[in-house]
Amino acid sequence: MARRTRVTLLAGGTGGAKLARGLALLGDAVDLTVIANVADDTEMHGLHVSPDIDAICYHLAGIADTERGWGIAGDTRSAHAMLERLGAPAWFTIGDADLATSIERTRRLRDGQRLTEVVTAMASALRIGARVLPATDDRYRTVVVTDAGPLEFQDYFVRLRQEPEVRELTFDGADTARPTNEMLEAIAGADLVVIGPSNPLVSIAPIVALPGVRSAIEAARGSRVAVSPIVAGAALKGPAARMLASLGHEVSARGVARIYAGLVERFVIDLADADAAPSIEALGLAVDVLPTIMSGDEQARALAAAVVEPATGA
Amino acid sequence: MARRTRVTLLAGGTGGAKLARGLALLGDAVDLTVIANVADDTEMHGLHVSPDIDAICYHLAGIADTERGWGIAGDTRSAHAMLERLGAPAWFTIGDADLATSIERTRRLRDGQRLTEVVTAMASALRIGARVLPATDDRYRTVVVTDAGPLEFQDYFVRLRQEPEVRELTFDGADTARPTNEMLEAIAGADLVVIGPSNPLVSIAPIVALPGVRSAIEAARGSRVAVSPIVAGAALKGPAARMLASLGHEVSARGVARIYAGLVERFVIDLADADAAPSIEALGLAVDVLPTIMSGDEQARALAAAVVEPATGA
Repeated sequence: MARRTRVTLLAGGTGGAKLARGLALLGDAVDLTVIANVADDTEMHGLHVSPDIDAICYHLAGIADTERGWGIAGDTRSAHAMLERLGAPAWFTIGDADLATSIERTRRLRDGQRLTEVVTAMASALRIGARVLPATDDRYRTVVVTDAGPLEFQDYFVRLRQEPEVRELTFDGADTARPTNEMLEAIAGADLVVIGPSNPLVSIAPIVALPGVRSAIEAARGSRVAVSPIVAGAALKGPAARMLASLGHEVSARGVARIYAGLVERFVIDLADADAAPSIEALGLAVDVLPTIMSGDEQARALAAAVVEPATGA
Repeated sequence: MARRTRVTLLAGGTGGAKLARGLALLGDAVDLTVIANVADDTEMHGLHVSPDIDAICYHLAGIADTERGWGIAGDTRSAHAMLERLGAPAWFTIGDADLATSIERTRRLRDGQRLTEVVTAMASALRIGARVLPATDDRYRTVVVTDAGPLEFQDYFVRLRQEPEVRELTFDGADTARPTNEMLEAIAGADLVVIGPSNPLVSIAPIVALPGVRSAIEAARGSRVAVSPIVAGAALKGPAARMLASLGHEVSARGVARIYAGLVERFVIDLADADAAPSIEALGLAVDVLPTIMSGDEQARALAAAVVEPATGA
């Protein structure tokens, strides 16, 4: 039997969660670790909400609401309706089962567990075979500096519907947050490090900006690949396209490739962007042109297989 | 227009909540304050759960699940199912909207609000006309000393299904908990103090045992009445009958009347216990024989009217 390929995926948001699902569907061929962005985390109703960790776990557990794009399939919203009735801030809709995840996470954190331990226990309870590791156990939050002032990510993304113009992105906790040993080991020990098709500025950048992570990726003995979250000049979901434009990046696969040049050797773009391959190769990156739109498990698995294939048996 | 009768009800559990509802249904004739037991409160999933306060508020707001006897009518249970899946203790079932109440309460308490402020704000949000006051803002918990050791009330009542034999009841926090000024004023200023048909040992005794409360009731300028929670030798709901027996009380309306003799002047018993009237009068109590079983709003309103009537226009 061939040795399992150790794959470490950096992910945040829906695209990263879908690719995690695709990699998990490769079964025993892959030994999967997912490093999750936590800079979108927020406090809501006094609870610690971790949208990226939860999206990854729900996709891996096969319970994600893939139609709505967030939360748990078939979830109810009774608690949200009651919270609204009681006068609590109601702009952040969360389903009842989804809320339970945050209740249990908050309880464990207040009991003194590290976020890494909390996520490991909860992933195990959901019978997820992959390791899911938060990028850091420390407080670390994206601050979206906008026309309307500095905003927490969810405040910008959900409450204000991405309307304010983005001037700058900073990370609150950048001076104090440290990557976990577990995540650094997962990068160092991987046969393949994959940067998922996530927002490069608010999902991947916060992970890479943690002290030592960029150099750990650059020094990784495995190969390194990124999947473009921009297809035909648009993001499939979320604020990536508008943010890239506001911050002076080209809104294209090539624009994202420029951000990742030096960090990875290989860049996966969609069939729709095949024409861009030469200009991305000119950045010093090998380019794979693949169907990257993961409209279901089958497409996610196929993309995962194609992303992993060059590293198999390495 | 006649002056509104100021009624202060001491309550805990379903019987007290139903009588609160009946009193509220008397409309403008009554200015109602409900003093709620908090000694059944517990921490569950890291949240502050207040079963008696919530039962009273839900009945007053007309959203109580009267068929099941607890929680909110039509509530879902998605969060509970997820909490169970995540390995959280699952013996305490709580509906999703009901859980939202505890989430919002916990958030406000952590923000530094007094429980009294929290309940006032939430009752207002539910458009409850009556004042609902926790007996104390301090930590104060019934300890059920049993064959199986000392237990928190919910642990005894829900998890162990009242199976262990009760040896003694004590109140954790008895040395430090103080009644609120608001509740002492509500007793002092009432035209009528009503002890609801609640468990005398774990719903009413913890309120009366707070320092100064017994003497405040005895010194109240208004009249004082209690409604028997025991009908025909049985409790309509909950562990009252078994607890009374275990602790050496007679399981009857007269047994309860003995506990309240001296504290109230008048005692309401059910039609089914009419024969007991002379022996209760022998304790120095006036006795009203009334239909006390509140199977719906109509019966609750009728009982409330009959309980209040002697104090009207006093």
